[in-house]
Amino acid sequence: MKAEILTIGDEILIGQITNTNSVWIAQQLTLIGVNVIHMTTIADDELAIINAFNQALKRADFVFITGGLGPTKDDVTKKTFSKYFGVELILNEEVLKQVSSFFIRRGKEVSEINRNQALVPGGCFVFNNAQGTAPGMWMKKENTVFISMPGVPYEMMAMMSNLILPKIKIENKLPNIYHKTILTNGIGESGLAELIETWENNLGSKNIKLAYLPQPGIVRLRLSTFGPNLEELRKNIDDEIEKLKIIIEKYIFGYENYGEETPTLAQIVSELLRKNKKTVALAESCTGGYIASLFTNISGASDVFKGAIVPYTNEAKKNLLEVDESIFSSVGAVSKECVEQLAENTLKKFGSDYAVSVSGIAGPTGGTEDKPVGTVWIAIASHEKTLAVKFLFGDDRQRNIVMTSQTALNLLRKFILKAE
Amino acid sequence: MKAEILTIGDEILIGQITNTNSVWIAQQLTLIGVNVIHMTTIADDELAIINAFNQALKRADFVFITGGLGPTKDDVTKKTFSKYFGVELILNEEVLKQVSSFFIRRGKEVSEINRNQALVPGGCFVFNNAQGTAPGMWMKKENTVFISMPGVPYEMMAMMSNLILPKIKIENKLPNIYHKTILTNGIGESGLAELIETWENNLGSKNIKLAYLPQPGIVRLRLSTFGPNLEELRKNIDDEIEKLKIIIEKYIFGYENYGEETPTLAQIVSELLRKNKKTVALAESCTGGYIASLFTNISGASDVFKGAIVPYTNEAKKNLLEVDESIFSSVGAVSKECVEQLAENTLKKFGSDYAVSVSGIAGPTGGTEDKPVGTVWIAIASHEKTLAVKFLFGDDRQRNIVMTSQTALNLLRKFILKAE
Repeated sequence: MKAEILTIGDEILIGQITNTNSVWIAQQLTLIGVNVIHMTTIADDELAIINAFNQALKRADFVFITGGLGPTKDDVTKKTFSKYFGVELILNEEVLKQVSSFFIRRGKEVSEINRNQALVPGGCFVFNNAQGTAPGMWMKKENTVFISMPGVPYEMMAMMSNLILPKIKIENKLPNIYHKTILTNGIGESGLAELIETWENNLGSKNIKLAYLPQPGIVRLRLSTFGPNLEELRKNIDDEIEKLKIIIEKYIFGYENYGEETPTLAQIVSELLRKNKKTVALAESCTGGYIASLFTNISGASDVFKGAIVPYTNEAKKNLLEVDESIFSSVGAVSKECVEQLAENTLKKFGSDYAVSVSGIAGPTGGTEDKPVGTVWIAIASHEKTLAVKFLFGDDRQRNIVMTSQTALNLLRKFILKAE
Repeated sequence: MKAEILTIGDEILIGQITNTNSVWIAQQLTLIGVNVIHMTTIADDELAIINAFNQALKRADFVFITGGLGPTKDDVTKKTFSKYFGVELILNEEVLKQVSSFFIRRGKEVSEINRNQALVPGGCFVFNNAQGTAPGMWMKKENTVFISMPGVPYEMMAMMSNLILPKIKIENKLPNIYHKTILTNGIGESGLAELIETWENNLGSKNIKLAYLPQPGIVRLRLSTFGPNLEELRKNIDDEIEKLKIIIEKYIFGYENYGEETPTLAQIVSELLRKNKKTVALAESCTGGYIASLFTNISGASDVFKGAIVPYTNEAKKNLLEVDESIFSSVGAVSKECVEQLAENTLKKFGSDYAVSVSGIAGPTGGTEDKPVGTVWIAIASHEKTLAVKFLFGDDRQRNIVMTSQTALNLLRKFILKAE
């Protein structure tokens, strides 16, 4: 089954709002095995809508339309809908009752403009809008079903989850779909591609698709497949992941399971700390508080996160974390010696089980021949030992901060796993 | 001028990532007076791409294409590009040099797979990718220009801002457009709308459009107009802003001038500190490092930012910032007394001219009847005085962190201005 998502709304075309409806609809359809082949956004304009309908008619089994159903003047969707199907708009008594009770419950009168919400194209199947006033509509032309939904996200979501998706599942025997995503750190997209080339070339014969999803410091590898037997699909993907693990295990820090949200590295590390009943504290020089904010973004962070010091000057490194002044004049603040002292003293100051420290040159200025922009030292300390590692990232400041943070979190993850 | 934005990528069609590129491109084009009429997202699939190109050819003057340019196999854009224009892919020496130097700067070799980034369709105009390896490409068919850009947001944004938009502006006589954006903090969108209703109703007669652009803690008001005489446009907008200032001056923290990036509150405060040759340090409890990361994201932060302590536990507040233990048992850590001591002691520890401290209940748990989720105390200290203010934000954790941070920065800004 192929679907197209059509969004109607000028506010999206001028970049004023992000089309989050399309993302959500695509997720829901993908999960029930409907293949989204096209997303389109057009203006509240009759000709544009009819052209888009004609295009969609050629390629999709289902067209999910959002937006353009409100009671105000600039919404032409419903009129165009009835015109496209060659039928009149007629008053639907059921919808009128629902719209009336919506306003009565709020102690308001139903205005003429709101009564118009009860006009629907003749012959269409109507979905009740439990959260608002604009009804959903389902009409078929040739082999394509056109489903119009309100643009207000929570109205659309309730209607789609409770009424539209069940109808589609019941009426169609959809293939099962399964996917799993591997989360990696420490290697770029092209580095991964070279390492796994042979493995990747074999996927096609197994009806498995691979996608590379890079972001700073992280590459996600998504494996997806479909077929009649869900258990078999799951097994096929798991088998391939086992083979892949032999090649790239050291870069893998987690998985995103079918139907779940992508865990962040901070979430994975926090869970690991919680499981082991351990805590962490940070000394962040070049990342300037970014790693702390990744931890504290997570609800319940105080169970595992004791705090951080951002010693942004040498003076602060010396006064707050007792780094030997001689280090600055001999090897400098971006050095093994400095991050080791930062991590060990952070451990003591906060009384945590682990400490992470980073010191580097985020850029764009401050680089030297010996220590170009992107040079970063990271240390992890526990009461047993201290590990320090040097990295060379790129020359973009924001990217260096993010890459340093992800890398430090993954180093901590591995450090904890070894200590378990 | 009409434009279409075409995004290529399976990961968007399955709802795995949100198409933020389209939003940003639409904003940029709208601001220079190019009318975005269509946004399309399709799969990494030759037939789908060619169909989309043919559709766009009929209706748009410019087609902005993102995605599908990475070095890995699932990217078919470039091959389809050369096929559509009936030309071969040829090695571009300039691009190869740039790709090579990109890897050499990172101490890496250029692999075969990365050399392929230097292949471009014959006859295309090439844009250098200052942030990555995939070049941008500009080709014309009939009256339509097709512009292909990398899908990685920061690579695409740099290329579009620095190279593509200037080329479009120079080559086309677009009507003069002028806009200025007013940045506000401390009042919501509907609160603002009520305050400025009468003023807003008069804008239409002056050919000025107003847009409300809300984000957590900040509402931007963009005034835009167009016409033949740029000086006149500028004067009309400035006149309206003068009238607006009378109504909402206390909420305004800055302006975004035509052609400039939106300054962040952290940038505005940093500039103010730099101008006054002053420094700041932070004690962040509920914001957990977020304010520090806003400061340190800015290049050259070390001139004005001395550092931060994130005392996430009472123990850390006591041990690192000498908060009296009695405070925790009497008024609690979310209190005037606590933030005052945090700010005053931060000032001493870092030897800064100003200190900011925050303590609050970010949520979703931890609220009480007296101090519900969203309760936040913020203090600002200098060597002369300390100011503490209580706020009640909402019940969303991430939103509370951002709103607290923006509010603290704006309090600091006003505090500095008073001291000037």
